[in-house]
Amino acid sequence: MLLDVLNYAGIVVFAASGATVGVRKDFDLWGIVTVGVLTGVGGGILRDVLLGLTPPASVQNWTPVLVALLASLLAFFFHPAFSQLRRTILVLDAFGMGLFATTGAVIALDVHASPFAATLVGLLTAIGGGILRDVLANDVPLLLQPADLYAVPAALGATVVAVGSTNTDVPHWVWLIVGSVLATGLRLAGLAFKWRLPTAPRRRS
Amino acid sequence: MLLDVLNYAGIVVFAASGATVGVRKDFDLWGIVTVGVLTGVGGGILRDVLLGLTPPASVQNWTPVLVALLASLLAFFFHPAFSQLRRTILVLDAFGMGLFATTGAVIALDVHASPFAATLVGLLTAIGGGILRDVLANDVPLLLQPADLYAVPAALGATVVAVGSTNTDVPHWVWLIVGSVLATGLRLAGLAFKWRLPTAPRRRS
Amino acid sequence: MLLDVLNYAGIVVFAASGATVGVRKDFDLWGIVTVGVLTGVGGGILRDVLLGLTPPASVQNWTPVLVALLASLLAFFFHPAFSQLRRTILVLDAFGMGLFATTGAVIALDVHASPFAATLVGLLTAIGGGILRDVLANDVPLLLQPADLYAVPAALGATVVAVGSTNTDVPHWVWLIVGSVLATGLRLAGLAFKWRLPTAPRRRS
Repeated sequence: MLLDVLNYAGIVVFAASGATVGVRKDFDLWGIVTVGVLTGVGGGILRDVLLGLTPPASVQNWTPVLVALLASLLAFFFHPAFSQLRRTILVLDAFGMGLFATTGAVIALDVHASPFAATLVGLLTAIGGGILRDVLANDVPLLLQPADLYAVPAALGATVVAVGSTNTDVPHWVWLIVGSVLATGLRLAGLAFKWRLPTAPRRRS
Repeated sequence: MLLDVLNYAGIVVFAASGATVGVRKDFDLWGIVTVGVLTGVGGGILRDVLLGLTPPASVQNWTPVLVALLASLLAFFFHPAFSQLRRTILVLDAFGMGLFATTGAVIALDVHASPFAATLVGLLTAIGGGILRDVLANDVPLLLQPADLYAVPAALGATVVAVGSTNTDVPHWVWLIVGSVLATGLRLAGLAFKWRLPTAPRRRS
Repeated sequence: MLLDVLNYAGIVVFAASGATVGVRKDFDLWGIVTVGVLTGVGGGILRDVLLGLTPPASVQNWTPVLVALLASLLAFFFHPAFSQLRRTILVLDAFGMGLFATTGAVIALDVHASPFAATLVGLLTAIGGGILRDVLANDVPLLLQPADLYAVPAALGATVVAVGSTNTDVPHWVWLIVGSVLATGLRLAGLAFKWRLPTAPRRRS
C-alpha cells in the first residue's frame, strides 16, 4: 500500500521533471507529454525487465501511464517561470530518485532477489528514468554532471532498504521512508551546499 | 501472414530511414549499415523484451536482420540527393511508425496482453526504433521535435487495432490495415499541412 | 572458467574505457565511476535481458559491479595524460569489444540459442556497453564514426565462435581465444593503418 503510494509519487515527480525538461527545450505539447510519460514510467519498466516481470507493470496496467500523463499536463500548464526551470527539474528529480531507489529495492526483494541485487535494481530504477529523459533531450545526464552527488544518495537509499529489510524485524515501510528521506535529503543537501567531488587530476602532456 | 508482411515492411522502411540518417551524418558504410539495422530491428526487440519473448524474434531468426541489412545497403547506394535526405527520412519514418504501431499491438494481443497493454506495446514498438536511431546519431528524437504530430498517430493506430480486434468480429487483418493507414496518414498529413501544437506558455521572470 | 576470466577481462577494459571517457568529459569522481560501471556491465546486462536470463548476472552477483568499480577507480587515478586519453579509450574499447563478442556468443550457445542468434547476441553484447558509454557522454558512438572498422570485427569474432563451436569438435576455449584475438586485432589494425570505408556517394542537387 505505502509501496504503491510512493511508487506513484515517484512516477508523478519524474514525469513532471521530464515534462519540465521538454518545456525548457521548447518541445511542443506532445513532445513534452511524451518525454514526461517516458521519464515517469521508464525507470519502472527497466526495473521490471531486469527482474523478468513481463509485461512490466507500467505496460500492463493503465494507471501508471495515466498518472504520468496527468503530471506531465500539470507541468505543461503550471510550470514555473523560465528562469526557475532548471532548479525545478533538479528538485523534482531528487524526489523521484529517492522514491524509485527504495521502491525498486523492495519490489526486487519481493521477487526474492538477493540484497545485493535489490540494491542494484533500486539504483538502476532510480537513475533509469532520468537517464532516459536527458538522453531524449540530448543532454548529458544529470547523473554524470560534475559537482553533484547523485549515484551515491541513490545507492545509499537502496542499500538501507535492502539491508534493513532483510536483516531486521523492523517493517518494510519504515525502511522505505527512511531510505527515501535519506536519498532525497542527501541529494538536495549536496545541491544546496554545493558539495563538490574531485574531477580527475589533469596531466596535460 | 499479412502480419509478417507488414512487420517486414516496417523493418525495411525503418532500416532505410536509419541508413539515410547515417548518410546525412556522413557515417561510413559500416556505420550506415549498423544504424540502419539497429533502427530496423530495434523496435521489434524492445517489443519482444517487454512481452518476455526471449530471445527476441529479430535475434532468433536471421531474416529480420538480413532484410534490414539489404534495405540499408539499398539506401546507401540509392539515397536521394543531399537536399532531400531529411524529407526522405521523415516519410520513411512515418510508414515505419504506422506499421510497427499496429503489428506491435497485434503481437501483444497474441500473447494475451490486455488491450491497454497492446496499445502501449504498439506505441513503444513504433517509437523505439526511431528513438534509437536519433539517439545513436546524437539528435533530439523526431518524436520530440516541436510542431510535429508523432506519438498521437502512433497511439491512435495502436488503439484502433487493440480495441477493434478485442471488441469486434471484424478480422485482425482489417484492423491492421485500417490502423496503419490511419497512423501513417495522420502523421504525413500533419507534416504536409504543418499542423502545429502549442509549446508551453512562456513565463519569463 | 576461461569464459569467466575473459568476461571479467571484458568488464575491466570496458569499465576503464568508460571511466576514461568520463575523465575526458570532466565528470567528477562519481560521474566517472558511474559511467565506468555502466559501460563495464551494460553489454552483459543487455545480453542477459535478450536471452531471458533475469535478473542479469551483473545484477544478481556483486563481483561484476565490484570489478567494474575498481577498474573505474584505477582509471580515475592512473589515467594517461590528457593528450592521450582518446587513444587509450580506443585501445581499451577494442579489447572489450573482442572479449564481449566471443563470451556473449558462448553464453548464448549455453542457453541453446541458434548459431545465428549466438552471433547476433555476441555482436550486441560487444557494442552495447560502448553505445551506452557514448550516449551517456552525449557523443556519437565510436561504432558509427566514419573511417573505423567496428561492427565488422565484432561480428566476425562472434561468428567464428558460434560457427566453430557448433560445427567442430575443437573445444570452446580455442574458439574463444581465436575469436577474441581476431576481433580485437582486426579493430586495432584498422585503427593503426587507417583502413577506410566509403561514405555514401553524395548527390548534391
